[in-house]
Amino acid sequence: MVSFEQNFYPKIGKVGKGFLRKIFEALKEEKDSKKVGYYELPKNGIKTIKELETYQRENTYFKNGSIKNIVVVGIGGSSLGTKAVYEFLRYKRKSKRQLYFLENVDPIIIGETLKRIDKKNTHFLIISKSGTTIETTSIFKYIISKYCFDLSQKKDANRFTFITDKNSSLSKLADEYSIKQFNIPKNVGGRFSVLSAVGIVPLSLVGIEVKELLIAAEGFIDSFFEFKEKKILKKAYFYSKLAKKYPINVLFSYSSLFSYFNQWYVQLWGESLGKWDKLGNNVGLTPVHLVGSVDQHSFLQLILQGPKDKTVTVIKVKDFKKRAKIPDIKLKYLEKTDYVNNHSFNELLNEECNATYETILENNIPADMIVLDKISEQNIGILIAYYELLTSCVGQMLMVNVYNQPAVELGKKKLVKKFTNIN
Amino acid sequence: MVSFEQNFYPKIGKVGKGFLRKIFEALKEEKDSKKVGYYELPKNGIKTIKELETYQRENTYFKNGSIKNIVVVGIGGSSLGTKAVYEFLRYKRKSKRQLYFLENVDPIIIGETLKRIDKKNTHFLIISKSGTTIETTSIFKYIISKYCFDLSQKKDANRFTFITDKNSSLSKLADEYSIKQFNIPKNVGGRFSVLSAVGIVPLSLVGIEVKELLIAAEGFIDSFFEFKEKKILKKAYFYSKLAKKYPINVLFSYSSLFSYFNQWYVQLWGESLGKWDKLGNNVGLTPVHLVGSVDQHSFLQLILQGPKDKTVTVIKVKDFKKRAKIPDIKLKYLEKTDYVNNHSFNELLNEECNATYETILENNIPADMIVLDKISEQNIGILIAYYELLTSCVGQMLMVNVYNQPAVELGKKKLVKKFTNIN
Repeated sequence: MVSFEQNFYPKIGKVGKGFLRKIFEALKEEKDSKKVGYYELPKNGIKTIKELETYQRENTYFKNGSIKNIVVVGIGGSSLGTKAVYEFLRYKRKSKRQLYFLENVDPIIIGETLKRIDKKNTHFLIISKSGTTIETTSIFKYIISKYCFDLSQKKDANRFTFITDKNSSLSKLADEYSIKQFNIPKNVGGRFSVLSAVGIVPLSLVGIEVKELLIAAEGFIDSFFEFKEKKILKKAYFYSKLAKKYPINVLFSYSSLFSYFNQWYVQLWGESLGKWDKLGNNVGLTPVHLVGSVDQHSFLQLILQGPKDKTVTVIKVKDFKKRAKIPDIKLKYLEKTDYVNNHSFNELLNEECNATYETILENNIPADMIVLDKISEQNIGILIAYYELLTSCVGQMLMVNVYNQPAVELGKKKLVKKFTNIN
Repeated sequence: MVSFEQNFYPKIGKVGKGFLRKIFEALKEEKDSKKVGYYELPKNGIKTIKELETYQRENTYFKNGSIKNIVVVGIGGSSLGTKAVYEFLRYKRKSKRQLYFLENVDPIIIGETLKRIDKKNTHFLIISKSGTTIETTSIFKYIISKYCFDLSQKKDANRFTFITDKNSSLSKLADEYSIKQFNIPKNVGGRFSVLSAVGIVPLSLVGIEVKELLIAAEGFIDSFFEFKEKKILKKAYFYSKLAKKYPINVLFSYSSLFSYFNQWYVQLWGESLGKWDKLGNNVGLTPVHLVGSVDQHSFLQLILQGPKDKTVTVIKVKDFKKRAKIPDIKLKYLEKTDYVNNHSFNELLNEECNATYETILENNIPADMIVLDKISEQNIGILIAYYELLTSCVGQMLMVNVYNQPAVELGKKKLVKKFTNIN
């Protein structure tokens, strides 16, 4: 269960209500016309899970139980969502399979990661929506060469699964060598693709209960389209209306398990909203991600006494289902710290969260809180759906195209030119 | 060697030059009067290294070579700097000792980390400037209880080293049980303490060549106080003068090795500058940290087409001294990606960096580049000194007290109250 405590949206009059309805209808139209596909992903995901199960029964290495490592080769939208869910649920899964990520073309990190795996017990997922992401294809080629793979040999082709758009270059390569592929729907952008095969395949392969996650996400999206999640529209309204006053949106998550969820949020928020609007203005909102209580000792001072240009959303987990306590040890000279003795770390973390939240509110900084009753597949599913819908709503209100990233292409073109000049 | 390419500071007239000189003198006065102590840390660090060597010869466990794990228990300024340096240099050290961090009071993470260590081969560093940081003391108590340590026994007291202010509660506890302690100078704040025992002790214990780092940092600080690093003053002038126009400062580091350096920067920048100025205004600059090339696929779109409220500093490493290449494999349908074949990952990463930097400049976003010739102790030492000095200069110009964090206390007081009400 996830509950949303919102304090900061302004009164919405009749005109405002009409506006929210219009935005809601716009999203509905995106969905009904199939212009935007992420709304349908959770529903269709069950098929992907089944397809993956069939595949595992057919692939020699999965069949004989030799696969101990899954390596995701993918960057940005092809890895962030998977990392977010994995980091959140990792500790409670039953599988012992390791999940590795190769994303950056950092020579040190690539070497370090590959040193840890043995090709004999490893399956590689090559993930690229376009099929030609330069980081991903470069690392893919490096893997082929390092492990002397010959894709025309069934035994080597079986070491790979591709996840990409239908008919992309990578998809055609898969066809050429009969490599298993899963496709990303054309109407789903990379940063909205975690609930497609992009997330489902790696997460399922390392023992995350993806089905539960999908069902919860689907339920939440359905509820939104039944006009029952008006809080999202209201929150989006606040962000959009006051985008100039509060250009920075802090996500302050109280648990290290959210480290990558935070980063997923940064991509979703930053890349979806930061662009020219229909009038040619530079618009957008800047995401900042923090982990509590750690970042109380880092960024909180700035929030409280720095410029009042930030909103804050705090995420709290009510019950971690871990009972570890601060023991009732009274150390000489440290008596001042004894007030937490006999309380659980869970309590300490949550009371720090509450104290921070209240302090932020008292300093007149717009803040809301999202409370998860526990760490669960359902809850992360809801959180993902919530943030995706919120992003779409804000984007509609800011009059930007939420789903493209035109500026990223600029750098890519320049890169090609640089190498063409060198060669 | 570190070189600094600055493009964005405005012309500085006669009045401006006088102002910069005044700021320089103010820093010099901080140093000479010993009001601010971090300027002297590198020079004094050599003594700490020697003291640590002596200690290792005396402590039973170090003497008999049984210590395989070092656990840092500390949060914020007590861990971030160490993490930054460790992550940067880790892969090139010779020691096989593992370094663990316990900072967050997250019940899942504490459990996971402690599961991996064995008390028989572990030494614990309890680090807290004030001596009563609640996260640190709580985890410390948990460790005592979990491993059944009795501090009054020499054999158990020897498992610990404390790093804290002289005469703090923790320091007195150390005296009580003859636990080894290193002290942080009173005039050095937590986020400026990485070159004190706070960083020197854990880093030396896991085989980082700290001496080289300190000498380079000292050289850079000396050079600054010889008025030879005017670029720092000029850059600070730009940031301060245009703080309202460019309230967000992005650090875009091209290598995953900078992940924690980036976070160290966030604390230093955010917590030092975000506060009420002498006139009672809310001032400050918001730090954002990115890793390239990964975050080209996440945040870059926002930088390029979002609101023009950001400056960007790009960090590049010229030569990683790793020759791994993208092999010359031509895959059918992927011909488009062959332009990088036969080039090293080092080249690819750097050309991505260059392409991004140029794109940013072409979009009229103030940007500069810092180039490290390689990954080395010297270079990270210079980077640390550079950012600390820059922070002090900006703080002087914004008329804030760079070295305190008054707002953080608000939440702390509230926390104590919460528990007092429960108990």
